[in-house]
Amino acid sequence: MGPLPAVVPVEGLPSRVTIYEVGPRDGLQNEKTAIPTATKAELIARLLDAGLSPVEATSFVHPRWVPQLADAADLETLLAERLGDVARDLPVLVPNERGLDRALDLGLAHVAVFGSATETFAQRNLNRSYDEQFAMFEPVVTRAKDAGATVRAYVSMCFGDPWEGRVPIEQVVTAGRRLLDLGADQLSLGDTIGVGTAGHVTALVAAFVEAGVDVDRLALHFHDTYGQALANTLAGLHAGVTTYDASAGGLGGCPYAQSATGNLATEDLLWMLDGLGIEHGVDLAKVVATSVWLSGEIGKESPSAVVRALGAGTAAAGA
Amino acid sequence: MGPLPAVVPVEGLPSRVTIYEVGPRDGLQNEKTAIPTATKAELIARLLDAGLSPVEATSFVHPRWVPQLADAADLETLLAERLGDVARDLPVLVPNERGLDRALDLGLAHVAVFGSATETFAQRNLNRSYDEQFAMFEPVVTRAKDAGATVRAYVSMCFGDPWEGRVPIEQVVTAGRRLLDLGADQLSLGDTIGVGTAGHVTALVAAFVEAGVDVDRLALHFHDTYGQALANTLAGLHAGVTTYDASAGGLGGCPYAQSATGNLATEDLLWMLDGLGIEHGVDLAKVVATSVWLSGEIGKESPSAVVRALGAGTAAAGA
Repeated sequence: MGPLPAVVPVEGLPSRVTIYEVGPRDGLQNEKTAIPTATKAELIARLLDAGLSPVEATSFVHPRWVPQLADAADLETLLAERLGDVARDLPVLVPNERGLDRALDLGLAHVAVFGSATETFAQRNLNRSYDEQFAMFEPVVTRAKDAGATVRAYVSMCFGDPWEGRVPIEQVVTAGRRLLDLGADQLSLGDTIGVGTAGHVTALVAAFVEAGVDVDRLALHFHDTYGQALANTLAGLHAGVTTYDASAGGLGGCPYAQSATGNLATEDLLWMLDGLGIEHGVDLAKVVATSVWLSGEIGKESPSAVVRALGAGTAAAGA
Repeated sequence: MGPLPAVVPVEGLPSRVTIYEVGPRDGLQNEKTAIPTATKAELIARLLDAGLSPVEATSFVHPRWVPQLADAADLETLLAERLGDVARDLPVLVPNERGLDRALDLGLAHVAVFGSATETFAQRNLNRSYDEQFAMFEPVVTRAKDAGATVRAYVSMCFGDPWEGRVPIEQVVTAGRRLLDLGADQLSLGDTIGVGTAGHVTALVAAFVEAGVDVDRLALHFHDTYGQALANTLAGLHAGVTTYDASAGGLGGCPYAQSATGNLATEDLLWMLDGLGIEHGVDLAKVVATSVWLSGEIGKESPSAVVRALGAGTAAAGA
């Protein structure tokens, strides 16, 4: 592979972070190309082999809403054949009790629900009011916990909302607190439309801590729509957050913005973490090679700067 | 225009910064498309109208080395006709005494020289050794200062070098100090291949300050080759640096990397600064409209995330 960044740590940052890989679920659900189930299984296996953990595998959502993930059950079968028990440790999104039933039937150990910090997005994405969403999640979280599964709760539109504009920090903290009170183990605070900037990140994390939430229960989920994802991650590191969502190759894109860029690319995040000397346990070259391979499979160039800069060399090295 | 970031300042950052716009020179010298001189003059006029200042206009380099800027003299004539005295305030790059002669003949008030922090790049780009470059710059800086012009000194390859790998911080500080000792007013520290990360920025700025250099004499020049430019800018702000080089629409690209991305896009920088509540005096919508217009002129989509996200709406609004 090409150059690597010089390692120059910054005092006060976490010494180790967890990258929560969302490419196979959040990335692929926003890709327009139909992707064979076997390709998805291969993608997940490669990401695990690169050291990424957790890797969110799919969503047990009704195929009418997300046709890209209609093969969730088949994918789980393939993964169980290929990975054995490891397949049960891959988190899946469960939008409701029906989705949870499917996850529990398969004996999966980790599920995630997808909430909204705003009224409008709750109505548009969940077909529920802001308040009603918590009533919908309550039995999902309770039953998942009773079955011994961990529960991650996504909170979307934490910084801005395409219909409501700026989202008040107190409103996000309230939504997050309610999900934690239901029993969720971790919150993933999402900048779904990518408008947030570094100071907003700092203030949001501080507000959660002030509200009594342990910073270790927070994850940050940034989109690169306005180019801010990595600067916001740096702000998150300064605020002590140790879990970051990212998508291999920058897979996926926010349907509410015209930009080609969506999720923070795992590779760009890895480059920064490597430079800062922050441990993550992931092999950058293997992730780049995976993204180059997937680009070929789906016929679309990766928007990740690192993949573009290193990709050709890695593909050659992998050939 | 579309959404804007919520304003959430961070304590301890500068309240105001200067954006040093390099698009017309550093951006266009790396574009492959031949661009009419009138288009360049229009670009500069639009960038000035958006509030950007300074705007580096061109380079008095021999056309053999940078054919894209062979029209420097014609451009200056056009700019003087169109902008009057303002044209004399636009900095130009002068690679040597011959270039300086041309700038002084036109009565220009600001010139820039382009040095290297590494031996190999000095030889390849300047056809001089690392030590010999200072002998070449000495009469340029001295004569410029004697004529009442200010001198900016670019220091390239401050973080990594494609041939030498990591560049030691002491070596960069030595190069910068020698240029300041010759009489340069400002240093622009460039991550020419874009490999640097946030901690490296912090350490480099700290090393200059420790060597007795006033932080106000430093500018930072980041490339987005590995997606790090804006995170590195955030680190620079934390270190107290108040001048940042950027290129409208992310114009230009580093010839030493395969990535489509080169200079930090002015628009992506403005988005972060707006979110942080840091004053800059620039109208984001006008810069986006300019980049959309230029994309049409040169037939190439802007790599700036902000331009991609807001561009369509702005183009419509500007029509």
